[in-house]
Amino acid sequence: MTLTVGVIGAGRIGKIHVDNLRGISQVKVKSVSDVVIDDLESWAKEKGVEVLTTNYEEILQDPEINAVFICSPTTTHANLIKEAAACGKHIFCEKPVSFSVEETEEALEAVEKAGVKLQVGFNRRFDPNFRKIRELVQAGEIGTPHILRITSRDPQPPGIDYIKTSGGLFMDMAIHDFDMARYVMDSDVVEVFANGAVLVDPAIGEAGDIDTAIITLKFANGALGVIDNSRQAAYGYDQRLEVFGDKGAAQADNNRANTVEVSTAQHVSKEKPLYFFLERYTQAYIDEVKEFVASILENKDVICNGLDGLQAERIAKAARQSLEIGAPVTLQPTGKSTAIY
Amino acid sequence: MTLTVGVIGAGRIGKIHVDNLRGISQVKVKSVSDVVIDDLESWAKEKGVEVLTTNYEEILQDPEINAVFICSPTTTHANLIKEAAACGKHIFCEKPVSFSVEETEEALEAVEKAGVKLQVGFNRRFDPNFRKIRELVQAGEIGTPHILRITSRDPQPPGIDYIKTSGGLFMDMAIHDFDMARYVMDSDVVEVFANGAVLVDPAIGEAGDIDTAIITLKFANGALGVIDNSRQAAYGYDQRLEVFGDKGAAQADNNRANTVEVSTAQHVSKEKPLYFFLERYTQAYIDEVKEFVASILENKDVICNGLDGLQAERIAKAARQSLEIGAPVTLQPTGKSTAIY
Amino acid sequence: MTLTVGVIGAGRIGKIHVDNLRGISQVKVKSVSDVVIDDLESWAKEKGVEVLTTNYEEILQDPEINAVFICSPTTTHANLIKEAAACGKHIFCEKPVSFSVEETEEALEAVEKAGVKLQVGFNRRFDPNFRKIRELVQAGEIGTPHILRITSRDPQPPGIDYIKTSGGLFMDMAIHDFDMARYVMDSDVVEVFANGAVLVDPAIGEAGDIDTAIITLKFANGALGVIDNSRQAAYGYDQRLEVFGDKGAAQADNNRANTVEVSTAQHVSKEKPLYFFLERYTQAYIDEVKEFVASILENKDVICNGLDGLQAERIAKAARQSLEIGAPVTLQPTGKSTAIY
Amino acid sequence: MTLTVGVIGAGRIGKIHVDNLRGISQVKVKSVSDVVIDDLESWAKEKGVEVLTTNYEEILQDPEINAVFICSPTTTHANLIKEAAACGKHIFCEKPVSFSVEETEEALEAVEKAGVKLQVGFNRRFDPNFRKIRELVQAGEIGTPHILRITSRDPQPPGIDYIKTSGGLFMDMAIHDFDMARYVMDSDVVEVFANGAVLVDPAIGEAGDIDTAIITLKFANGALGVIDNSRQAAYGYDQRLEVFGDKGAAQADNNRANTVEVSTAQHVSKEKPLYFFLERYTQAYIDEVKEFVASILENKDVICNGLDGLQAERIAKAARQSLEIGAPVTLQPTGKSTAIY
Repeated sequence: MTLTVGVIGAGRIGKIHVDNLRGISQVKVKSVSDVVIDDLESWAKEKGVEVLTTNYEEILQDPEINAVFICSPTTTHANLIKEAAACGKHIFCEKPVSFSVEETEEALEAVEKAGVKLQVGFNRRFDPNFRKIRELVQAGEIGTPHILRITSRDPQPPGIDYIKTSGGLFMDMAIHDFDMARYVMDSDVVEVFANGAVLVDPAIGEAGDIDTAIITLKFANGALGVIDNSRQAAYGYDQRLEVFGDKGAAQADNNRANTVEVSTAQHVSKEKPLYFFLERYTQAYIDEVKEFVASILENKDVICNGLDGLQAERIAKAARQSLEIGAPVTLQPTGKSTAIY
Repeated sequence: MTLTVGVIGAGRIGKIHVDNLRGISQVKVKSVSDVVIDDLESWAKEKGVEVLTTNYEEILQDPEINAVFICSPTTTHANLIKEAAACGKHIFCEKPVSFSVEETEEALEAVEKAGVKLQVGFNRRFDPNFRKIRELVQAGEIGTPHILRITSRDPQPPGIDYIKTSGGLFMDMAIHDFDMARYVMDSDVVEVFANGAVLVDPAIGEAGDIDTAIITLKFANGALGVIDNSRQAAYGYDQRLEVFGDKGAAQADNNRANTVEVSTAQHVSKEKPLYFFLERYTQAYIDEVKEFVASILENKDVICNGLDGLQAERIAKAARQSLEIGAPVTLQPTGKSTAIY
Repeated sequence: MTLTVGVIGAGRIGKIHVDNLRGISQVKVKSVSDVVIDDLESWAKEKGVEVLTTNYEEILQDPEINAVFICSPTTTHANLIKEAAACGKHIFCEKPVSFSVEETEEALEAVEKAGVKLQVGFNRRFDPNFRKIRELVQAGEIGTPHILRITSRDPQPPGIDYIKTSGGLFMDMAIHDFDMARYVMDSDVVEVFANGAVLVDPAIGEAGDIDTAIITLKFANGALGVIDNSRQAAYGYDQRLEVFGDKGAAQADNNRANTVEVSTAQHVSKEKPLYFFLERYTQAYIDEVKEFVASILENKDVICNGLDGLQAERIAKAARQSLEIGAPVTLQPTGKSTAIY
Repeated sequence: MTLTVGVIGAGRIGKIHVDNLRGISQVKVKSVSDVVIDDLESWAKEKGVEVLTTNYEEILQDPEINAVFICSPTTTHANLIKEAAACGKHIFCEKPVSFSVEETEEALEAVEKAGVKLQVGFNRRFDPNFRKIRELVQAGEIGTPHILRITSRDPQPPGIDYIKTSGGLFMDMAIHDFDMARYVMDSDVVEVFANGAVLVDPAIGEAGDIDTAIITLKFANGALGVIDNSRQAAYGYDQRLEVFGDKGAAQADNNRANTVEVSTAQHVSKEKPLYFFLERYTQAYIDEVKEFVASILENKDVICNGLDGLQAERIAKAARQSLEIGAPVTLQPTGKSTAIY
């Protein structure tokens, strides 16, 4: 069986998905839409894309297409989900689903009503290090989880223009960590307290955002957690995670380009962490798409569904509120542990 | 020149100090006092202690004695400091100075008035790993500090009887981490938020304490910090620390009894961390005493003075208050960076 | 420009090359030959192979084909190289070129006469760890090399039938290490002494081979080297390398499937090394083919040429001879350092 | 019970033994002899040494003295052992026992005849890393040993004057590794092949020695081994060891002054290995003396006896011979596995 796919939005991440989809033998990437397509023609030709259009409706109305990838700006996601669902397409949507919990909820209702699959692009769930941690927790190897620690630091901040429309550090960057927290702990977050600071670049503060944060979490299962974020780590992308439980702890270190250690009169050194998400999560981007395709072809649950997307957004909102009021903010648990694996 | 020392309180830590003092050629341990001394006689003889008494006044009134080590229960510390200071003795006092900020302040006033030296027993300042971190920070190797992370977990909780009189996790255990935070960041803590839970043993909760905590800190210099604590780590004493700054990060890992790595069909494994503080901080206990002696003989500032002791207590109090009210608590900075090195 | 390729021999390694060639946009895999092709039909169809034949001549005579991959048994390599060269095809040949130095020399003469490119399949030259070591040596980061250490152990021995036709441990397994030695040291081997033993399986000894070896090397530049081999490492594929020079040392550790470390009451453990060459050298297999294609399309020297293949065989022969006579064996250096990068 | 000790030779190592003996409560260091003692008077006084003499006979004839430490130059060891044994003293002798196998054998006969204990100063047997390896091997954790790898490199060569009287790299430096090989493998060496080179300093070659070596070993139990040595590692003292067996491998890494890892834009670095033997083997020097004392007081076998000393010398001799003739040299096994633990 072949899955025919249309991709809405051919920016950096859209193109990555096209490449990764082309590596799956059961998939045909038929159509790509974007608001401007002049620069995309030779690319589309090289990738074997048949239809290149500025009208995404063309994709949604194409009966041959089974699934769409929504890779356009966040503000368009919720409506596109609703439209795509109405057209009976399975949906892969980049994170976050929207900047508004209400919009996201409406989109999820549409998805449920249509009975299509929706996978949200939390690629880190597919990273081998974090998957291993989740497996160990699920297998009881470290007992009941008590403490979660996530370190998540980017190598450099995005441009100020991006910052302004990003939804802020919590919604744009930490949202991955909020999802990861739920994924490895297999429990909902019920309280958030956020400390934030502008230490990297005053311009980020002037744009109304922060660049450094420490966020503490309480989980429905009673465990505690903490996330530390920075927009700028001099040594590269820092993506570490630790779960501590009553039988032990499991911690994931960064990945490096090689295992070489050099000893000289000055020091003993090794490679820095892989530079940024494209290097670190190369395999995760491949696997999230593979597993989305498999979930459709084999009619399985997706590994990261709409409710997961919604919950991460709700935590991001709560973190922002906590920062603003200087006090912890409580969230209602969903009562559903949605992560599957 | 010889420094003649008296030790008040010959429990586990008092005995360790006696051993370490005996390894310093300029020191003579003349006297030891405790409330019950019957069991101590052969020990005292073996250690060359001349005077073994149940009356600590005998030590304070002995004109030959230059310095006293206060190793008795915390509730006696403040008064002993005041008395010893009045007698013109230099003072090494185990942490915490007291359970009451007011009592500690009174004790410090007595010390200042008497012009004697007071060193508080925050032994971890003398640990080679943490000293190295402080040196790196001071030397600007990692730039301006932005984030501090401390993991501090004991291998097993003390008995419930001890818990009840310990002052609680913040005052008894995390106080070391509060001092460490000020030491490596070289900045006062101005805000504390504490999450706590009873996850290890319900009896600890019934005794009015917690056994698991995540505490976030704001520093006077604008940096953020987080400490995670547990009373029970299945794999041993977990004492790690990381400072992240704008030029890089420095992290200290645990110490192990050997460097051996074993690879089998089952796994690749290495030694667990050293079991507890006596194993991990052996050298730190030796060095804190050596440097206290040197500060007297060479008339130098002590590395951990009374103000350091006071500030750690104030943070512990604030953490407890934060836990109780469920909100962050602010502290006034002292305006003095007191750590010297 | 497109490079049209024919593959002679579609066993495990032949199929891997087909997959990796298909990932290169400038390459078309047109033809595949093997002695028995009944089982290959659906595979060939899936891979888009146009011609599937039992007659490799069909490939060599096809004027559209620019390059051939020789993946048939070793005993056929030399003749195939000669024939392919005579037909003007560029050649990628699996290692070893032959079991006979004379045959290999004849094949290389044919290649030189025909002016075609020949790359020998020493895939480890393309491994990121070992490449990094070579770069560091070339850049002078560790000064003049004094000592080379290679550990190269398989997770399990091949079947006895394979052992019997393998050419023996030196020609089949250590030959990779002999090539690696020349590659990272950038110097010819001028003396070999081999210790060998049958410690893994007596049947290997009965088949006339050894399963454990320590081989010492002297290089033309005066440096010393040692390789240790075993056919069976309980913990997986062990591929480590260290170069020690007058300014320092560089060592490459094994690769693991993830970076997770688990600490429990029993031990602190991490993943075993990747299981075997297919897992460890996945990327190296991709890159050796990419760079072979690039060397043709951009008319560059190959990274591992026929002389490299010949020298590795000569060292393997010398090692076997050393084992038999129980004394070191000298080799004439070629006077050419052939590795390029 | 008290052990009264005399020390013959108060150079660097003699003084270290005095310090370590003074830390043992059952030991009294009564006497020290050296050829020149003018500079030693204040040192001896500070250490509580009662008798300081240029006449070692005074020590041997002193009926109060139970044990002597022979720390004088190697050429004097054998005679001193014979004299001390004749006087009924237990003996701790620095390595090597002598430069002559015959002299050593005579000395051992005298020891056996006198029924005194003799411990040879192979301090590395007491290093926690190597002890752990031996324990793992003895416990069968890695199965039957197949391969031993030792890396043993000094941070810098001794002066040329020392080199000239040192007995050469094999007798002076590698002898520790030969003993270690027997200790961890618990098997005698039956064949040695040595490659050597002068790569560090031509003056060492002019003095008739080498500064770089790779030595391969065959053991009586069939296993193979290799030692690599250099007189100069730019990054410090490099002391690593690995035993590979049919169930797995155990490897010991270097020790470092702290566990701190620093990540910057340039690199990720950690401390270099501890500088040299005094830093690396501090604890081993303490423990070898403690266990020698215990072996006398509790009448137990010493951990490193005269036969161990003899065998290490025989291997060193064989290595030298192998280097000179360019071929492997066989040794007769003793048939005794002497290491105890």
